[in-house]
Amino acid sequence: MSDYNAIREECLAANLALPKTGLVDLTFGNVSVADPERRVFAIKPSGVDYTELTAADMVILDFDGNTVEGDLRPSSDTPTHRCLFLNFPGIRSVVHTHSRSAVAFAQAGVDLPCFGTTHCDYFHGPVPVTRGMTPEEVGGDYEWETGQVIVERFKAAEIDPLNVPAVLVRNHGPFAWGPSGAKAVETAQALEIVADMAIKTLAVNPSAPQAPEHLLNKHFFRKHGPGAYYGQPKTSQS
Amino acid sequence: MSDYNAIREECLAANLALPKTGLVDLTFGNVSVADPERRVFAIKPSGVDYTELTAADMVILDFDGNTVEGDLRPSSDTPTHRCLFLNFPGIRSVVHTHSRSAVAFAQAGVDLPCFGTTHCDYFHGPVPVTRGMTPEEVGGDYEWETGQVIVERFKAAEIDPLNVPAVLVRNHGPFAWGPSGAKAVETAQALEIVADMAIKTLAVNPSAPQAPEHLLNKHFFRKHGPGAYYGQPKTSQS
Amino acid sequence: MSDYNAIREECLAANLALPKTGLVDLTFGNVSVADPERRVFAIKPSGVDYTELTAADMVILDFDGNTVEGDLRPSSDTPTHRCLFLNFPGIRSVVHTHSRSAVAFAQAGVDLPCFGTTHCDYFHGPVPVTRGMTPEEVGGDYEWETGQVIVERFKAAEIDPLNVPAVLVRNHGPFAWGPSGAKAVETAQALEIVADMAIKTLAVNPSAPQAPEHLLNKHFFRKHGPGAYYGQPKTSQS
Amino acid sequence: MSDYNAIREECLAANLALPKTGLVDLTFGNVSVADPERRVFAIKPSGVDYTELTAADMVILDFDGNTVEGDLRPSSDTPTHRCLFLNFPGIRSVVHTHSRSAVAFAQAGVDLPCFGTTHCDYFHGPVPVTRGMTPEEVGGDYEWETGQVIVERFKAAEIDPLNVPAVLVRNHGPFAWGPSGAKAVETAQALEIVADMAIKTLAVNPSAPQAPEHLLNKHFFRKHGPGAYYGQPKTSQS
Repeated sequence: MSDYNAIREECLAANLALPKTGLVDLTFGNVSVADPERRVFAIKPSGVDYTELTAADMVILDFDGNTVEGDLRPSSDTPTHRCLFLNFPGIRSVVHTHSRSAVAFAQAGVDLPCFGTTHCDYFHGPVPVTRGMTPEEVGGDYEWETGQVIVERFKAAEIDPLNVPAVLVRNHGPFAWGPSGAKAVETAQALEIVADMAIKTLAVNPSAPQAPEHLLNKHFFRKHGPGAYYGQPKTSQS
Repeated sequence: MSDYNAIREECLAANLALPKTGLVDLTFGNVSVADPERRVFAIKPSGVDYTELTAADMVILDFDGNTVEGDLRPSSDTPTHRCLFLNFPGIRSVVHTHSRSAVAFAQAGVDLPCFGTTHCDYFHGPVPVTRGMTPEEVGGDYEWETGQVIVERFKAAEIDPLNVPAVLVRNHGPFAWGPSGAKAVETAQALEIVADMAIKTLAVNPSAPQAPEHLLNKHFFRKHGPGAYYGQPKTSQS
Repeated sequence: MSDYNAIREECLAANLALPKTGLVDLTFGNVSVADPERRVFAIKPSGVDYTELTAADMVILDFDGNTVEGDLRPSSDTPTHRCLFLNFPGIRSVVHTHSRSAVAFAQAGVDLPCFGTTHCDYFHGPVPVTRGMTPEEVGGDYEWETGQVIVERFKAAEIDPLNVPAVLVRNHGPFAWGPSGAKAVETAQALEIVADMAIKTLAVNPSAPQAPEHLLNKHFFRKHGPGAYYGQPKTSQS
Repeated sequence: MSDYNAIREECLAANLALPKTGLVDLTFGNVSVADPERRVFAIKPSGVDYTELTAADMVILDFDGNTVEGDLRPSSDTPTHRCLFLNFPGIRSVVHTHSRSAVAFAQAGVDLPCFGTTHCDYFHGPVPVTRGMTPEEVGGDYEWETGQVIVERFKAAEIDPLNVPAVLVRNHGPFAWGPSGAKAVETAQALEIVADMAIKTLAVNPSAPQAPEHLLNKHFFRKHGPGAYYGQPKTSQS
C-alpha cells in the first residue's frame, strides 16, 4: 500500500461518510484528501459503488495531476479538486455532491443568501455561484476549467475560501472544502441544510432580507478564529 | 418454469428493486423486461403486493400481446409496455411509476427542463410531456393508446428514445426505459431526482434558464457513446 | 371481552397500521370500525399512545353514542365518526389524521383538485373542503357538528360518499372512510399522496387544469364497480 | 453526582429525545431543565455529541448564571435559557433547535400564523418573531440579550408564555418551553409540524386566512385548563 496510508484511510472514511449524510443520490459524490506538504492527494475512483470501496481503491495523484499510485481511474472530477488544492492554500479536503437544495441554487444561478445564524455558523457570507462556462471551456479541459471558474469567482469578489468554504458551480452543483475529510463532509452537509432552509424561507417571504452584518460576524467568529467560545476549550477535555 | 427464466428473474429483480428506490407509493409501479430477439417480454402481474412476488408470478407475453406463460393477469399497463417495445428498438426494459415529482410535471403539463448536469448525465434534453388523450382514445384500447401518444410525441419532435429514455404521460406519470431492468430502474430514479431538483430550482428562480447546449452535450456524451470516459474502462476491471 | 371481538381486532389493526403509513405526527389520528347491522362501532381511546394499544382498549359505542363496553374515554372525535356512520350508509370504517399535505388544503380552504390518474384511482372528483363552522356550532356539540358540516357538504353538492371517500374539514384536516379498516387507512394514505402531488403540481404550474372527465371516469371505474379490470379476478386466485 | 440528580436525568432524557424527533441537524439543539424552587437548572454542555452524553455531563447553574456543578462548559445558549427561566414563571424546561420549517419563519421575519387546529392544540395564537437585534446587543452579552428580546416581544404584545409556549428568534430559530423536559420537546416538535403545514398551506393559497377565534379557543382549551376533556381523566387510569 505504500506510505500514503494516512490520506488513503482519511479519504476512504470521508467517502464512506458521505452517503450516510443523505447528500448522495445514485453515485453522485466524491471526496479527496491531500497531504499539501508532499503535494499529493487521494481521491475516490470513478464510478465505483460506495459499498465496495476500500482504502486500496483510493487513487493517489500529485499536484501536477500524475497518478502516483493506484490501478483504477480516478474520479472524473479529479482536475477540479486538484485546481482547488493548488489555488486555495490551507485546505486539505474537497467534497463534491449533487445535494438537491444546493443544486437548486446552482441551477437557478442565484448566490445562496445568508438568511440566518445556521448559515453564519459555517459561511461568512453568501455562497457564490460561478459564471456560466464558455463552449471553449466546456469543450477543452472541462473539469480543470471548472476549478478555474471557481477560483476566478473567489478572486474577483475577494472572498477568502477559508471563510466561505463552499461554492455552487452553475448548472451543476456544490463543492465544499475544509481542513480534514470529516470537516469538509460536515460543511457539505451544512450547505445542504442552509440551502433547504433558504428555499423554505423564500417560500414564506420572497423578499426576506439577509442577516445583518453584525450577526454574521458574531456567529462566524463565535466558532472560528482566536475569539471562538463555542464547544469545549482544548485544555478541559480528557 | 420454462426457458424464459432469464427474463423472469431479471424482471423480478427489477420489480423488487423498485420499492427500495422510494419511487413507489402503495402499489403504483411495474417493470417489464423483454427478449427482443424472441419477441417476448416478462411483466409484473396486476395488483399483487411487492412482498409476495416470485419469478413464477411474472407473466410472459409475446409482442402481439398474447400470454405465452402465466396464470395471473398481467399488469393493466401491459399494452403500454408492449407498444414501447414495438416502437423503440434497442430498449429491453420499461419501468412505470407514479413517483411524485415526475408526476407533478406530468400533471402540470410541462416538459421537465434540463437545468443542470445531473439531468444531462441521463437525458439528452428535456423529458417531454405527451398531449392529452381524446375521449375516443381513453374509451378505446386505453393502455395501448397511451403507448401510441408516447411514440407520437417522440416522432413528432424527432427525439431519439435512446438519448431521452423517459417520458411524462400527461395527467398520469412517468415511464422510463433502458437496456436492462437495472438500468431502467436507475433511470426512473434519476428522473425523479432531477424532477425534484427542478421544482426546487423553480422555487428559487421561476425563470431559471436551461443548461446551455454545449454543457448538455458534454455531460451526456461523457457517459454515453464512443467518447465516454466516466467509470472504469472495461479492460482494467477484474 | 364480549362478542365484539371482530370489530375490536379490526379496529386495533387499523389504528396500529396508521403510524406506519407516516400519516401520524405525535398522537393525531384515530380509526373506528363499525358493525352497521348491529349499529355499534369500535374506536380508539383518547390520548393513549399507539405503542400501548390493545384490542381490549378499544371502546365500543352504539350508533346513539352510548358506550356499550370499555373503561376508557373514547377519542374526542367520536361524535364525528358516529355522525358519518349514521349518514353515509355503506361505510364500515372512518379514519381521521392530520397528515400534512391534506391539512394544507384544509387550512387553505381549497378543494383538492383532481390533477391526474393517481387521484382518479381513489376519488371520483375533487376532495371537498367543508364550510367554516359558526361560533354556535363550535361552542355547542362541536365534534358532532363537525360531522354535520361534512354531511351537509356532500348533500349540497350531491357527492356520493362511496365515490369520493374523503373530506377536508376546514382549518382542521382530513377524514377518510371505506368498507374496512384496512381500506380506509389505504384511502387516507392515497389522499396524502395526491395532496402532496397536487402541491408540487401547483409549484410547477399554478394554473394546471384538472384531469378531463373522460380520464377520471376511466380510471375510477377501472378499479371500482362492475366494469373493473384491475388486479386479479376472484376466481383465478388461490 | 450530588443532589441535582433529578434534573440531570430529566435533562439528559430530553436532550437524548431531541435527535429522535428529527428536529436536529448536526449539533444544533439543546435542552435545559430547571428546579425553580431551588433556582437552579441543568443544561447540555457545549459542542458535545449527542451519542456521548451522560447525566454527569449536564452542567448545573444557578439562576444568577454561576456554575454550581460540572467540569464542562455549558451550551453557548445558556444565558438565553436562564433569561427565560427568570422572566417566564411557571416554565421548567427550555428547548432550542434549528428545526428547518420553524427557522424558515424566523428567517423570513414572519409570525407563524395559526391556520388550523393542529396549531390551536398547542399554541393559543400565532407564534411571534422577535425584532432584529441591534449591533450593541449582538456585540454585548449576546445570548442574554437574545433572551431579553424574547421577553420584550411577549410583554409588548401581552402574550402569556404559558399559552404560547414558543418563539421564533429573528434570523436564528425557535425556542420552546414547558412544564417538563418531555413536554417542552413535544412542543418543539409540534412547532416544526405546524410550521411545515403552514408553508404548504401558503403554497396552496398565499392569502389563506387564519383560523377563527372561536375555533382557536375551543381547541386550545379542549386540551388546556380546567375545561379540558382530551385524553383520559386522572381518576380512570391505572
